[in-house]
Amino acid sequence: MKLLQEKIVQEGKVLSENVLKVDSFLNHQIDPVLMQAIGNEFAARYKDAGITKILTIESSGIAPSMFAGIILGVPIVFARKRKSLTLSDNLFTSKVHSFTKNETNDISVSKDFLVDGDTVLIIDDFLANGQAVLGLLDIVEQANAITSGVGIVIEKGFQTGGSIIRERGIRVDSLANIKSLANGKVEFFEEDPTA
Amino acid sequence: MKLLQEKIVQEGKVLSENVLKVDSFLNHQIDPVLMQAIGNEFAARYKDAGITKILTIESSGIAPSMFAGIILGVPIVFARKRKSLTLSDNLFTSKVHSFTKNETNDISVSKDFLVDGDTVLIIDDFLANGQAVLGLLDIVEQANAITSGVGIVIEKGFQTGGSIIRERGIRVDSLANIKSLANGKVEFFEEDPTA
Repeated sequence: MKLLQEKIVQEGKVLSENVLKVDSFLNHQIDPVLMQAIGNEFAARYKDAGITKILTIESSGIAPSMFAGIILGVPIVFARKRKSLTLSDNLFTSKVHSFTKNETNDISVSKDFLVDGDTVLIIDDFLANGQAVLGLLDIVEQANAITSGVGIVIEKGFQTGGSIIRERGIRVDSLANIKSLANGKVEFFEEDPTA
Repeated sequence: MKLLQEKIVQEGKVLSENVLKVDSFLNHQIDPVLMQAIGNEFAARYKDAGITKILTIESSGIAPSMFAGIILGVPIVFARKRKSLTLSDNLFTSKVHSFTKNETNDISVSKDFLVDGDTVLIIDDFLANGQAVLGLLDIVEQANAITSGVGIVIEKGFQTGGSIIRERGIRVDSLANIKSLANGKVEFFEEDPTA
């Protein structure tokens, strides 16, 4: 997605060969116009997939999911990163390790909002080691729901998450797929020809 | 806001005289159509206020902020509830106590995204004791920015937060203001005549 790639080049900060910071439009400050374009793109790609629910994870997955939800006409469910005291025990849970934060969180989704028969589009901001998406896939399986595909805003294609998930036969749509962050420069894989 | 009040009556769960759970459309599963209506309402109320930025707090403030941001044509900044290792120390911080979770978090906003000269609309999902909003107001003050007003999806008007903030001379727009949760029943204050 050209608009997104341009924004990454203009505003992304390459902090190391592994770390790209996009706090100015995605992870802390949010550009709603870009989020709308991203949501529209996910919705266009999955418009015939019979999606009944979008599943994402707090916090940065919520914004790109909102506009996809409006177009597809389905609710968004965001997995929580730990139990809240006002939630009951009626939960699907999975463990997610964050290499960035060097911590493992339980993620959880209420059994009320993901059910047998749901066809799910998973959306997240980043795909790197794939831990968050694997946790969400685990939760979809626990619910006996079906994952139609995974929509990712920015994939770090030089890390292993994308391969692990695609090798399981799961469709992954990354709107920007980064080949390298070497020498402080963002290099992308060529755009998916269907994009 | 009638649509919101109806949704609260239909789907809200009164867990006690103080606790209303709206996990089916706001705090866990999100209804994007309702969020769009809410965002449009906030935008309409603040369209002439010269807003340059929306400030909210992760996670449940993000969804209602997105659609207001699109209409007002301004970015959304969400305060984080603790430091992330990929954030630098270039932060405004404040302390927020959650009575629901019985814990105190640091909230933080990067100095890059809130600056002297900004006119801020604060948006949050709930206003109860006012702790989160007070923390956000503190951060806006630290930035030498101006708070134009506070947009709240659901105020628990029988708790003290709304009074504390209004007594400081700050405009508060609550789209649903709850008078009582006694006897398992949601009772609203009469709608703001300007709504």
